Amino acid sequence: MRIVVLAGGIGGARFLRGLKQAVGPEGEITVIGNTGDDIHLFGLKVCPDLDTVMYTLGGGIHEEQGWGRADESFSIKAEMKEYGVGPEWFGLGDRDFATHIVRTQMLGAGYPLSAVTEALCARWQPGVRLLPMSDDRVETHVVTDVDGERKAVHFQEYWVKHHALIPAHAIVPVGAETAKPAPGVLEALAEADVILFPPSNPVVSVGTILAVPGIRRAVAQSAAPVIGLSPIIGGAPVRGMADKVLEAVGVETTAAAVAKRYGSDLIDGWLVDEADEASVAEVEAAGIPCRAVPLWMTDVDASAAMARAALDFAEAVRKP
Amino acid sequence: MRIVVLAGGIGGARFLRGLKQAVGPEGEITVIGNTGDDIHLFGLKVCPDLDTVMYTLGGGIHEEQGWGRADESFSIKAEMKEYGVGPEWFGLGDRDFATHIVRTQMLGAGYPLSAVTEALCARWQPGVRLLPMSDDRVETHVVTDVDGERKAVHFQEYWVKHHALIPAHAIVPVGAETAKPAPGVLEALAEADVILFPPSNPVVSVGTILAVPGIRRAVAQSAAPVIGLSPIIGGAPVRGMADKVLEAVGVETTAAAVAKRYGSDLIDGWLVDEADEASVAEVEAAGIPCRAVPLWMTDVDASAAMARAALDFAEAVRKP
Repeated sequence: MRIVVLAGGIGGARFLRGLKQAVGPEGEITVIGNTGDDIHLFGLKVCPDLDTVMYTLGGGIHEEQGWGRADESFSIKAEMKEYGVGPEWFGLGDRDFATHIVRTQMLGAGYPLSAVTEALCARWQPGVRLLPMSDDRVETHVVTDVDGERKAVHFQEYWVKHHALIPAHAIVPVGAETAKPAPGVLEALAEADVILFPPSNPVVSVGTILAVPGIRRAVAQSAAPVIGLSPIIGGAPVRGMADKVLEAVGVETTAAAVAKRYGSDLIDGWLVDEADEASVAEVEAAGIPCRAVPLWMTDVDASAAMARAALDFAEAVRKP
Repeated sequence: MRIVVLAGGIGGARFLRGLKQAVGPEGEITVIGNTGDDIHLFGLKVCPDLDTVMYTLGGGIHEEQGWGRADESFSIKAEMKEYGVGPEWFGLGDRDFATHIVRTQMLGAGYPLSAVTEALCARWQPGVRLLPMSDDRVETHVVTDVDGERKAVHFQEYWVKHHALIPAHAIVPVGAETAKPAPGVLEALAEADVILFPPSNPVVSVGTILAVPGIRRAVAQSAAPVIGLSPIIGGAPVRGMADKVLEAVGVETTAAAVAKRYGSDLIDGWLVDEADEASVAEVEAAGIPCRAVPLWMTDVDASAAMARAALDFAEAVRKP
């Protein structure tokens, strides 16, 4: 069973851990990771979503936090403050810095991000094939107001520095339109038996991956069933600040509205939480088969049950 | 009193600490630092000698070790090992990494090394003006035999990895011949009241600085007295492996031989340790005034006494 997952950070990584448990060694999982959150900090290339997937599946994640490394120290951060070199709002630990140093060195030596990611995964053995969505630079910017002036800031500045508390007028994945899918991405999508959208942010995670034209086209044209899991439960994001970015793109923060944003040309099935059972009819009215199942990733078993529900649903909607 | 010091790493830094104490706030000290030991590690620019001076005079040095930071941790080094990324033989701590990250970021943004060094010193406040000998890349290579094959290796590989235990057939400061002195270097030498060669390695520290043609010329032509302190006491280096690199350039490991290598066209006075009193005549026979004084830098007071001896000697040989 070849499964392709379009993954953002924490939600995607935790879902993948469940999926791995659900399918066991027979499942061949390819993860297409969001790189729109990538940022250059201190001259280093930082890939938060790829790293969150890699650390989570490789056993190095800070469990409670959901991102960054376990058993972490912050000497470099303290030194940067002494040097007066910012930004202070992005909390990179010493162990995490090592990953960014290795990555930046390899990129500087001419390797594309996909090859670098493969090299990093040789250590972490995440048990999935992790591909960046593109080797080209794509950077999600948020059009906002800072000190009374309208301007675009890097997504991380909006999200981590301002905690999504400044207005978001638009979300722009700069560079996505001309980005080419990374090597292996289109092949994986073409050969997939199932394609899954985990309960990741539909705008700045899965949405950014789909903003790469070749990827959207390959997903839409795939013969394999495409199943999405709602990141919205009871009108609120399970985690993070998805409501803010949904508002920016004119989409209601409901499980049904997110399904309709993906649309029936992209997804073949949509899972909502049991709390949103009432919205099943609304989703199906939009031509998207829908089921209500528990969608709280409280632990790995719960995530695995969600993954099984998604795979079962894929079989149910699979075209003969 | 304007004093210019040509400094290598540990010996230079400890001498400078004594010099600062000896001259007090009235002394205006410019340090021309060796950059031939600089190395790119993990994609980062590492300047061991500049940092040793900066950390030592700024109060951040690891005292016993003589290089690197006090209160240091090694998370990144451990991570690099996990990633299988070398070299393992160069021991950079986490705090030290921060310096190299800031430096590399600034160099990448287009600042020359001299400007970067000034920016780093804004934090450390070393109490001297620290200038790299050149903004151009100079790299000391050692011609040696590795696995039966003659090849050139970076000085750090020879020194730190092999502990100078492999044969050194030649020492080559690659790039020195075409390197231009960094901004401020020639001005400082032209305006100096005294020029000092601390008890640093005469081949790979002071020698490399003098390998930049403009610097050698400016020192030779200076009207100010140039006083050197012997790094060799009783036929052995005070610290490090200077005997090995002296042998490579065909110079005996004696206080007198080092003085003669500099030569009377470069230095106007030479201090040997009391243990080498017998060599004073030999040095003076080569046209170089010589005195024997205690040259063990056992503590800051001892280093300060050496600095005072050098300054006294400068007055004694100063041309009217």
